[in-house]
This record gives sequence, structure tokens and C-alpha cells, in this order.
Amino acid sequence: MAPKISGRNQLPGRIIELQLGDILAEVSVQVGDQVVDAVITRRSAENLQLKVGDPVTMLIKATEVMVIKDMP
Amino acid sequence: MAPKISGRNQLPGRIIELQLGDILAEVSVQVGDQVVDAVITRRSAENLQLKVGDPVTMLIKATEVMVIKDMP
Amino acid sequence: MAPKISGRNQLPGRIIELQLGDILAEVSVQVGDQVVDAVITRRSAENLQLKVGDPVTMLIKATEVMVIKDMP
Amino acid sequence: MAPKISGRNQLPGRIIELQLGDILAEVSVQVGDQVVDAVITRRSAENLQLKVGDPVTMLIKATEVMVIKDMP
Amino acid sequence: MAPKISGRNQLPGRIIELQLGDILAEVSVQVGDQVVDAVITRRSAENLQLKVGDPVTMLIKATEVMVIKDMP
Amino acid sequence: MAPKISGRNQLPGRIIELQLGDILAEVSVQVGDQVVDAVITRRSAENLQLKVGDPVTMLIKATEVMVIKDMP
Repeated sequence: MAPKISGRNQLPGRIIELQLGDILAEVSVQVGDQVVDAVITRRSAENLQLKVGDPVTMLIKATEVMVIKDMP
Repeated sequence: MAPKISGRNQLPGRIIELQLGDILAEVSVQVGDQVVDAVITRRSAENLQLKVGDPVTMLIKATEVMVIKDMP
Repeated sequence: MAPKISGRNQLPGRIIELQLGDILAEVSVQVGDQVVDAVITRRSAENLQLKVGDPVTMLIKATEVMVIKDMP
Repeated sequence: MAPKISGRNQLPGRIIELQLGDILAEVSVQVGDQVVDAVITRRSAENLQLKVGDPVTMLIKATEVMVIKDMP
Repeated sequence: MAPKISGRNQLPGRIIELQLGDILAEVSVQVGDQVVDAVITRRSAENLQLKVGDPVTMLIKATEVMVIKDMP
Repeated sequence: MAPKISGRNQLPGRIIELQLGDILAEVSVQVGDQVVDAVITRRSAENLQLKVGDPVTMLIKATEVMVIKDMP
């Protein structure tokens, strides 16, 4: 049995930078040619024992994504 | 003068599918090897005259991103 | 290897109602004494083959939660 | 006249832990058998004079909730 | 006793347009010189008996707001 | 060519206060008669060289907005 998540965007990558703050942490992940940043709680970062080099998946709900288009 | 947005994740791609609902629209965009889905208002989709093939940028705030890690 | 998610709130329950719209779906889940509602894409609902009675877990990022307090 | 909020998920509980950071605060609330975590601004935490033991309600918009299901 | 909400942005206005979809509803509110749009569940719109002309308050968590600046 | 963003709420104003934390920053902006607060990453605040007095636009997705109504 494997858990499946409704969040449509699940982008695999590898942690390239990790910054711990007092309450939150910033996690930068290389996803293909792009860097994707997440801000999560420091507790979650510790809980998942995140460290640079870890393979992870970035999870983003489709309702959180905006679209930008260059208009003539 | 060019506008710059605080949202840290700005992923460029091309629309591969567009589905219009009554209030909302679902936009699927090829970003490198990944497909990123956005749910926006139908009005915004019409306002931006989105159509399949359009080059667009997906905008995601870092605080909206979660991290998944396989634990041993 | 089991995947672990940074999202701090993971509330287990059972689906008591499911409503499919054109783009989105509304899922109502009994969590202890409370009902928790999620709005997800219809595609995700179909992808997860959600139906009434299914045991599921509601995932909520801590940054999405507000606090209400009665003030004297 | 009582204010009513569109946010569908309003979970009553009691604060069991409160951590103040420089900009944000983390509030942990016992809701039935579950602990629900909120990250809010430190200013709001001070504004509401939050302290351990306070009865509060956790407010969550349905569009912010994801669903996880174990698949065979 | 009046409830106080941690969400820092509470903008008062009046509903100028209301559109009901199958699952969601779009509510447009005049706030000073600006129009602010909310997408909420249809059930919440019915629950609050929203109609054009109603005085309402738009509630927005500070972590959901991005900043755009014109750069030279 | 000017970029157009799907986010329906774009409120112009001027920064009246800026507070930098370890990971995040809080930006307060006067929008007409209202103050609108944003919490963004510190990096974005530095990247945009935000300072008090700057004219900026606050960007908010409609799905992030809740509605409060006084009920009789």
C-alpha cells in the first residue's frame, strides 16, 4: 500500500541549500533546470532530517499556482 | 522599468492543456520534464487570452510548497 | 522506505460526502468529532478513486491555518 | 449580530504550546485527539494575547486542504 | 466577547457581484477604490446568504500576499 | 510586451513599514485607507531592494481570500 496525494504538482529534485531560522526553514531544491524554494517549519525540517544532497519531492497544490503571460 | 515579483518560484514553460469550468480554469504547463498544473479563475484565463502553446511562467510562493522525503 | 511529508497537520478520517464539479471536487471527511472539507481538482479525486467511506488523511500546511480567539 | 466566516473548517481546541520567533509564531492546538499547528505573525499572536491554555478555533480554507489515500 | 482573527488583512467593503458555480462561487467586493475578488465554496456563499450589496470583510493571511515592485 | 499575472487582486500602495527576520520579512503597505501586510522571504525583500516609501503592488490570488459577514 503506497500513499497517494491529491496535490497535482509533485516535482522531484535534490536539496542544494538549507537555511534554518527560529520558527521556519528555507529549502532550495534543484528540479531539472530550475530551483524551487520551499519555506516549511523548522520542526518539519528536523523531523525529516533534511540535509543538502537529499533527494526530495516538492509538493504544490494546483490552486496555489498563478500564471504569468507576456502580453503584446 | 520591469516589474519584479517577490514570489521565489517562477517556472517557465508552455501550455499543453487548458480546461475551462464555470468559475475556474485548469492550466497544464510543460516545465522541462515536468507538468505543472494551475487552477485559476476562468476570468483570468480569458483576461490573459490563454491558449494551448502559449509560453507562460508559473508563479508559486515559497510558503505554499511542501517537501516529501523517503525515510528509511 | 516510507514517504514523510513536511506538512505538519495530517488528520486521519473517513470520507462522508463527495461532490464532483467540472474542474474541482469537494470532499467532506469526518475527523473525530469534526468535519473537515477539502476542495481538490476533479482529476485528483478521480486519480485517487475517492469514494464515500474511504479512510483518508487530510493534509494542511501550518502556514495556511489562522487562529480565532474570543476576546473579552 | 455575530460575524460568520466563509472558511469551512473551524476546529475548536486549546493551545498546548506557543513559540515566538522574530516575525512569526507557531501555535499548537489540541483539537480532539489531534494536534493542529498554525504559523501566524508574531504580531497577531501578541494582538490576540495568545497563551497556553487559551480556547481558540483553528480556521482553514477548504481550498488549502489536500487529501492523502493509501492505494493498493 | 467578540471573536478576533489572527489574519492580519481584514478589508471592509460591499459585494458588487456574485457568481455561483457548481462547487465554488466568486465574490467581487468594492474595497475603497479597489475591487477585491474571493473564490469560496458555493456552500459557504449560501451559508452566509451572500447577495449583492451586502457589507462584508475580506480576510487574507499575510503569508498569502506577494509584493510586486517596478525595478529600474 | 508587458507581463500580465492571473492573480486577480493587485492592490497598489506604498511601503510604510519593513521588518526583516532571519528567513522571512514582513512588509506593511498603505493601500487607500487600509494597511495590507505581506510576509515574504527575506531574500525576496533584499532581491527587490524593498524600502519604506517604495510604491509596490500587493498580489493576492482570489482562492486565498475568505469572506466575513455579520449575521443577524
